[in-house]
Amino acid sequence: MKIAVQKYGGSSVATTEKIKKVAEKVIKKKEEGYKVVVIVSAMGKSTDGLIALASQITDKPDPREMDMLLTTGEQTTISLLSMALISKGHRAVSFTGSQLNIQTTSIHQKARIKDIETTKLLKILEEDTIAVVAGFQGVTEDNEYTTLGRGGSDTSAVALAAKLGGKCEIYTDVEGIYTMDPRKLKKAKKIGKITYEEMMEMASLGAGVMHFRAVELAHKYNIPIYVASTFSEKKGTIITNGGDISMEETLVTGMASSLEDIQVTLLNIPSAISSLHRLFGALAEAEVNVDMISQMLTEDGKMNVSFTIPKTDLHIAEEIVDEWKREDNHVQWEVNTDIAKISVVGLGMRSHSGVAAKVFKIMAQHGIEIKMVTTSEIKITWVVDVRDELKTIEVIGSEFGLEMA
Amino acid sequence: MKIAVQKYGGSSVATTEKIKKVAEKVIKKKEEGYKVVVIVSAMGKSTDGLIALASQITDKPDPREMDMLLTTGEQTTISLLSMALISKGHRAVSFTGSQLNIQTTSIHQKARIKDIETTKLLKILEEDTIAVVAGFQGVTEDNEYTTLGRGGSDTSAVALAAKLGGKCEIYTDVEGIYTMDPRKLKKAKKIGKITYEEMMEMASLGAGVMHFRAVELAHKYNIPIYVASTFSEKKGTIITNGGDISMEETLVTGMASSLEDIQVTLLNIPSAISSLHRLFGALAEAEVNVDMISQMLTEDGKMNVSFTIPKTDLHIAEEIVDEWKREDNHVQWEVNTDIAKISVVGLGMRSHSGVAAKVFKIMAQHGIEIKMVTTSEIKITWVVDVRDELKTIEVIGSEFGLEMA
Repeated sequence: MKIAVQKYGGSSVATTEKIKKVAEKVIKKKEEGYKVVVIVSAMGKSTDGLIALASQITDKPDPREMDMLLTTGEQTTISLLSMALISKGHRAVSFTGSQLNIQTTSIHQKARIKDIETTKLLKILEEDTIAVVAGFQGVTEDNEYTTLGRGGSDTSAVALAAKLGGKCEIYTDVEGIYTMDPRKLKKAKKIGKITYEEMMEMASLGAGVMHFRAVELAHKYNIPIYVASTFSEKKGTIITNGGDISMEETLVTGMASSLEDIQVTLLNIPSAISSLHRLFGALAEAEVNVDMISQMLTEDGKMNVSFTIPKTDLHIAEEIVDEWKREDNHVQWEVNTDIAKISVVGLGMRSHSGVAAKVFKIMAQHGIEIKMVTTSEIKITWVVDVRDELKTIEVIGSEFGLEMA
Repeated sequence: MKIAVQKYGGSSVATTEKIKKVAEKVIKKKEEGYKVVVIVSAMGKSTDGLIALASQITDKPDPREMDMLLTTGEQTTISLLSMALISKGHRAVSFTGSQLNIQTTSIHQKARIKDIETTKLLKILEEDTIAVVAGFQGVTEDNEYTTLGRGGSDTSAVALAAKLGGKCEIYTDVEGIYTMDPRKLKKAKKIGKITYEEMMEMASLGAGVMHFRAVELAHKYNIPIYVASTFSEKKGTIITNGGDISMEETLVTGMASSLEDIQVTLLNIPSAISSLHRLFGALAEAEVNVDMISQMLTEDGKMNVSFTIPKTDLHIAEEIVDEWKREDNHVQWEVNTDIAKISVVGLGMRSHSGVAAKVFKIMAQHGIEIKMVTTSEIKITWVVDVRDELKTIEVIGSEFGLEMA
């Protein structure tokens, strides 16, 4: 049985008109000889509407009840899409996460898929019925409704494709994965193929199109993902393993930039491993996601530490540092909120040293100050002043061939 | 365990502000020492909004998918009400029809409750947690979501009260059951107590507040229902068995009037039992709900038959009669669309003959023509010209003591 799992995001099903067009696209796939499973998100901004309703009730909605509320969003879309498919003369059946028994852990609002029961699904696919499945949601052993958190519908799609042994197609409002967000680099190129690892790095940098967890899952089960535009026939991007991608070809596959972080620098803290443990232990315990870290000893036996955290976590970091300052009045801190975090990602870096050196050279040539840098196997990340963001993107994009010819 | 089952209709939970007020009312009941089960409908006109969405997709939405769509309405309300209860410091858990295993037949959009699994419910009530249950919905053996049709939430409430052995309170936007719709009889009285049988007759006449099925179920299990206003402390109406109601007191408990019917008269049809069978058999098969029937033989061995049907079924009746007319050109028909159907209901009629005679006398005294009449054990129904509707209500209301002193 040739199975295709298609996922359509919120913007693709934002109106009933769009849902009818999605139905046509689904039917086309079926007519190509595939048994089709369609995963859909909630319509457009309807999830935001539900969140707003909850916030009118209370500042801190109960997580279980929040999942009860949010799961109605996809349930609305699956019913409407099924109606559209049926009205066009095809058999279709919708399923909530609970009905399909998409088993998850029991952590509300960020549950993780444990398994999916496919007997029922395979039976209806064999009968040539289109299965329309609510993304983003699952159910616990106790029949409690859960949601998967951000990017959840992508994860639902990949998990179903893995479980059914089908191909996975993610349809969205962009035409694929670009070397860089085209809003920031006008001439950014669409990438034909990208590896899971590169995509995971891009995703974790907030490149938007695909969520990290979904790519991670696809990687684990080696499920190729095709990302393309819902309402265009243009060729999209395939996310796959490196096997058939010539690693020699490009050093850098893509670039990302984030304005979501701040740089915190602690000065004159005691130079002992216990200091680092205390600092980052406390941040971890408060669930502050520390990204870049750089540390330097000073001449007087003290230590300076610089790190980046999400802007939204500033007040938590502040509390932790304030406590420390009360104990040791040598400790000082500086916060820089006007930074851009730039990253380049590329599997080619593995076999080519000198990518970092090339970055430094380009930045120096253009007189852009690097405030902090970290490197990993396939990624280089550095911090610049926010005013240098677009210039950095331009010169790096040009020098590493990320633009259209 | 003292259990109270409260039901709040759509207008009572139309906004988040109203939901918060409902939460306070629920908490008050709990603080009176009750374990509380709350049944809610979809918020305000949200079900209409969902139906409109479906109609944008197709003229004939698939019934299964329609139920999938509509069940999101109550699911939204239960989550918001539970959040409100929790934010006020009480334990609350919401349940969809599926989660609570409200087992129904599998006829979508008009399923009937078969049974309710109460183990889970009793357990959480024992823990002093408030159970918030989606009304109007259930689930089949195959975990297919169903809805109960009009008045479904009332039925859910009565069924739960019956199953749990609790009291049943229906909160709505009116203060109780009135002798007559106060929009039509300004001085209509609120009824303190009314029997199931009277209420069923009133409900089937479209008296609005309570649906027939819910009252029928309450009657079957002898569950008293208290109907009152959500946002007022005024005493409402108790629907109960006749045991503690003095039947001598009133001949007529209430009156209803409907403009939803038309009167069809067939002239010169063959005077044979097979004619009646043919006519009403065909109407029944086409699911036309025939209410009043009156039949009269003519001098030339033919028969005239007059009956009332809902306005919306006119075209179906027309098709049936047309076919007959093609076969027998003696058959003629007349349709009167400008009629009002007036009914008086009262358990007292059982033991007091002459209520019909009194109706005829009053009508004659005021010169109002009766076009058709039928009587049952506790109800008299007659048809008048629509222009005579309000005058009829006024004189009958006054003569039978249906007005406030």
